[in-house]
Amino acid sequence: VPIQYAVEHFATAVAATSGSLAARGKQVDLFGVVVLAQVTALGGGTLRDVILDARPVFWVADPGYVITATLAALFIFVVARFLTMPRKFLLLADAGGLALFTALGVNKALATGVSPVVAVAMGVMTGVAGGIIRDVLTQEIPLVFRHHINLYATASLCGATVFALLQSRVDPGTVWSLAIATTLVLRLAAIQWEIRLPLFHAR
Amino acid sequence: VPIQYAVEHFATAVAATSGSLAARGKQVDLFGVVVLAQVTALGGGTLRDVILDARPVFWVADPGYVITATLAALFIFVVARFLTMPRKFLLLADAGGLALFTALGVNKALATGVSPVVAVAMGVMTGVAGGIIRDVLTQEIPLVFRHHINLYATASLCGATVFALLQSRVDPGTVWSLAIATTLVLRLAAIQWEIRLPLFHAR
Amino acid sequence: VPIQYAVEHFATAVAATSGSLAARGKQVDLFGVVVLAQVTALGGGTLRDVILDARPVFWVADPGYVITATLAALFIFVVARFLTMPRKFLLLADAGGLALFTALGVNKALATGVSPVVAVAMGVMTGVAGGIIRDVLTQEIPLVFRHHINLYATASLCGATVFALLQSRVDPGTVWSLAIATTLVLRLAAIQWEIRLPLFHAR
Repeated sequence: VPIQYAVEHFATAVAATSGSLAARGKQVDLFGVVVLAQVTALGGGTLRDVILDARPVFWVADPGYVITATLAALFIFVVARFLTMPRKFLLLADAGGLALFTALGVNKALATGVSPVVAVAMGVMTGVAGGIIRDVLTQEIPLVFRHHINLYATASLCGATVFALLQSRVDPGTVWSLAIATTLVLRLAAIQWEIRLPLFHAR
Repeated sequence: VPIQYAVEHFATAVAATSGSLAARGKQVDLFGVVVLAQVTALGGGTLRDVILDARPVFWVADPGYVITATLAALFIFVVARFLTMPRKFLLLADAGGLALFTALGVNKALATGVSPVVAVAMGVMTGVAGGIIRDVLTQEIPLVFRHHINLYATASLCGATVFALLQSRVDPGTVWSLAIATTLVLRLAAIQWEIRLPLFHAR
Repeated sequence: VPIQYAVEHFATAVAATSGSLAARGKQVDLFGVVVLAQVTALGGGTLRDVILDARPVFWVADPGYVITATLAALFIFVVARFLTMPRKFLLLADAGGLALFTALGVNKALATGVSPVVAVAMGVMTGVAGGIIRDVLTQEIPLVFRHHINLYATASLCGATVFALLQSRVDPGTVWSLAIATTLVLRLAAIQWEIRLPLFHAR
């Protein structure tokens, strides 16, 4: 539980950062940025808890997550005025959120006793949902459906599978590290070398 | 319950097909197509179960639905490379999903003891939600709000009403057949002869 | 509870009106307008009840809300053919829905015993969610993220904070009036004099 807790707070801050950065060039105001950060950071986990009926929803039980996301958004709001943040920074924060939330999703799903297939699906959903909501709200095509976005949901699927396979076999620290590293390394390698799955071609 | 089960698996495959076909011309990769198929096939029922608090959510209880949707998506991914699928095919799969999910939604809602008005609303919601999410994610105007789309939510409403009215009066097989046929025939007839409700005109 | 009930029905009608008016110029048919009105009017409260696990969801328990929203949509559908409704009317109905749903959200959240921070977050979410869904479905940029939209989520935040601060200190009538007035006055004043928060500027 302490690992879940620490990782969840860190993931919240990272995802809130990616949510805030998505507001660039969109002329969103201060509180709009906070809302976007909250939705990106808390959306995936909320969906996970509601579907698994894991009550109360994590941020209802502990308002610390709401505060963490708000502080991260305010920090980015101020810092972005003075520091140039290349687009790579959003992609990096997004990849971090993807890796962390995937592991968190599988872990919480397994803890409620669902089957491994459902736990993996729940991990992918927790990983990609926040970013999808962020992209829909800012009228971007969700990263998961863009052809030049390499191994997005796929990286999440691999990390989730690693977590589910190792969970009852090795110690928690190793499970978390390997699962998070799998998603992160796959996603970053795919960005760097433009690795991708075959595209859908319809005649 | 066996009817619910068989129809639900068939509906999942049909809706997953419509979700996969929505990826045409969008340059979505293999796993993106699977995600789109899952969301289209499982979205409406998930919303229904969460709002009705019917636990566990159907695909959490039985991962078979996740697998059915995945297999349908992979099948379409391969087949679409070799066979030409006219746009009518997407509309047909969508109409099938609409009719089946509407009946499934009303049935499950009535089983939890809600009032007929709520059961009909739940049927329409289950019928249209998956397709709406699919269209939002692929940045299309949802079919339900397009003027040249004839009797969409209306066909679902009629099928749902037939189900709710007949349910305690005739045998299950008749209820399911008539409700599904009502939605399907209305929707297909409306496409064929361009039947539509009056449009919203604001001065 | 009676205040909650009366305000909720009134808010439903107001939000359904804003949902219906969003269909202008979009060539949505009669039942599409009803669906849009329902989603706008019932979406925020549904999200609130599902996340708080306040069961049954308000409109499942009382189908009167579904009927109220439907009647409001039909009324607007007919009236809009004969009366010119300026765009200000949509903004006014939207501001009314924002103010009312914010108060309703905080009140219901506080009644379930969550912390004040969560109750305020829940108020803002209930206030803005219906309108966000409406805008996403009609492919508009959500009001909350538009730069020329003045003090939107901010007005909701202030109203929610007023409610949470006063709730255990003064009588219910005063709490409701002051909270609703705070959101409404701030939002309308901001529209009138173009008051706004600083925008997000990234170098």
